[in-house]
Amino acid sequence: MRSRVDPEAVVEPVSSHTLRRRVQFYELDSAGIVHFSTYFRYMEEAEHAMWRAAGLSIAPLGSEVGFPRVNATCDYHAPLRFEDEFDVHVRIAAMTGKAIRYAYELRRGDVRVATASVTILCVRKAPDGSMKAAPIPSSIAARFTVAGDAGVPQA
Amino acid sequence: MRSRVDPEAVVEPVSSHTLRRRVQFYELDSAGIVHFSTYFRYMEEAEHAMWRAAGLSIAPLGSEVGFPRVNATCDYHAPLRFEDEFDVHVRIAAMTGKAIRYAYELRRGDVRVATASVTILCVRKAPDGSMKAAPIPSSIAARFTVAGDAGVPQA
Amino acid sequence: MRSRVDPEAVVEPVSSHTLRRRVQFYELDSAGIVHFSTYFRYMEEAEHAMWRAAGLSIAPLGSEVGFPRVNATCDYHAPLRFEDEFDVHVRIAAMTGKAIRYAYELRRGDVRVATASVTILCVRKAPDGSMKAAPIPSSIAARFTVAGDAGVPQA
Amino acid sequence: MRSRVDPEAVVEPVSSHTLRRRVQFYELDSAGIVHFSTYFRYMEEAEHAMWRAAGLSIAPLGSEVGFPRVNATCDYHAPLRFEDEFDVHVRIAAMTGKAIRYAYELRRGDVRVATASVTILCVRKAPDGSMKAAPIPSSIAARFTVAGDAGVPQA
Repeated sequence: MRSRVDPEAVVEPVSSHTLRRRVQFYELDSAGIVHFSTYFRYMEEAEHAMWRAAGLSIAPLGSEVGFPRVNATCDYHAPLRFEDEFDVHVRIAAMTGKAIRYAYELRRGDVRVATASVTILCVRKAPDGSMKAAPIPSSIAARFTVAGDAGVPQA
Repeated sequence: MRSRVDPEAVVEPVSSHTLRRRVQFYELDSAGIVHFSTYFRYMEEAEHAMWRAAGLSIAPLGSEVGFPRVNATCDYHAPLRFEDEFDVHVRIAAMTGKAIRYAYELRRGDVRVATASVTILCVRKAPDGSMKAAPIPSSIAARFTVAGDAGVPQA
Repeated sequence: MRSRVDPEAVVEPVSSHTLRRRVQFYELDSAGIVHFSTYFRYMEEAEHAMWRAAGLSIAPLGSEVGFPRVNATCDYHAPLRFEDEFDVHVRIAAMTGKAIRYAYELRRGDVRVATASVTILCVRKAPDGSMKAAPIPSSIAARFTVAGDAGVPQA
Repeated sequence: MRSRVDPEAVVEPVSSHTLRRRVQFYELDSAGIVHFSTYFRYMEEAEHAMWRAAGLSIAPLGSEVGFPRVNATCDYHAPLRFEDEFDVHVRIAAMTGKAIRYAYELRRGDVRVATASVTILCVRKAPDGSMKAAPIPSSIAARFTVAGDAGVPQA
């Protein structure tokens, strides 16, 4: 149960992914809706599921590269409540040698819950804990591609 | 997508449930293992999934009763790491007129990760926010029963 | 210990606030730096401290109005590590009849850690849990004012 | 601002500590009270503050030892609500060559909110991520001592 990647061979590079999720009690605030900071955790879950679908882990044990976030932004359109089921759609909106920008849409059925964007930067970690921007390893870059219009969910 | 209960008719009372879960990145601490407080959130997820399997929501909108925790205890046997898949087994270990005690076992394949216990108390909420112990409504109590030996996972 | 407001009389409307905070262990991710979603929680802490400094609570028990977030955005400039002490500076960047936009800067000594913006909307809560945009009550609006240049921390 | 220890010389070993804390909005659940899992985070904050008071950091960068939890238990006596101020009192209840057991009491003024216990184990970390029980380094053990009756808060 520790194989971190999907077992099937991965042929085509990946450009989008959809995660189905249910709201948990500890994610609510006292207004009975999901706390705004939690949306960024939902987005991260969908991102990492997309990496697994590409045959990758974003943080394998002992890795010398990491992917900290340099920007995160979210527009909140509708609340999520206890036990709601919803979808997190992530697609690769842009990719450079050192950075990837994801675009997100969260939906509960027909309701658009949030639209968002997160940019990650590839860094190389030094033994002293410092981090320096570095090229995305080709073994990773080759597995992803920018989403075309087909990657955009239809409203 | 807002029906909070499983649609099929529920005939037999429920005494245990198993939730399959994957470790998310934001649940790790800086040692690369799941933070000890997060185990209690995993247990809550399994508990609420058991309530749904019993045709119930533990916190429907506007409910006059609630189920705060009066005791929680966990023994940690093995760590969980990024993207590990594991099972949370919950069973009803004891039930009185006002309280339910759950027993938990977390497993990653053959590895016993944690054993735990949580006791909840039924309370009636007053408009001023105060809470007072109250009998578990019969519509809820009728859906659950204490687990026999069959509810204990075999090591 | 339940008085939710600062005891001294509040005369001048408030336009900014600075919160000193220390990084806690459970806020780190497995890279040993604060998780990006946690920055939004730091910002919320500073915001609510500013409300208290204005003699207000943003969520008094039984309140009929609430302030959900409609946008949140953050640029991450430098990491925060275990036990780092840092400052969260919040100022009111814009205010309309129904919304407030906060601008944030997080600093660890001379290091600019993050710059951010969060917009909140005043809503009136219906008994069925739905929320509708509503004017900010005058008792609240009168306590705040948009920050001038004096509210901008000097780099 | 990165000095992780209190600057004054530490002479006497430490056996207890009290942390004053305020409830934050993101720590509440939809019942308007602090989520039960969060109490363990409060306890961790008080524990690490006690380590700092002893001139130590529990997780300095690059440390070869760590202190995972092997047991955590909490009895919940009274709820905590938004913006409540409360105290977390931690004392060393027992100490062996490889483990420390803390006893906790949380109070809001005269109200006893929770009593709890957490046991930590000293481990040595291998490069492959595995952990093995190990003696508490003497530089750490020398800074702590089991609390006598003086360490017990008076009700």
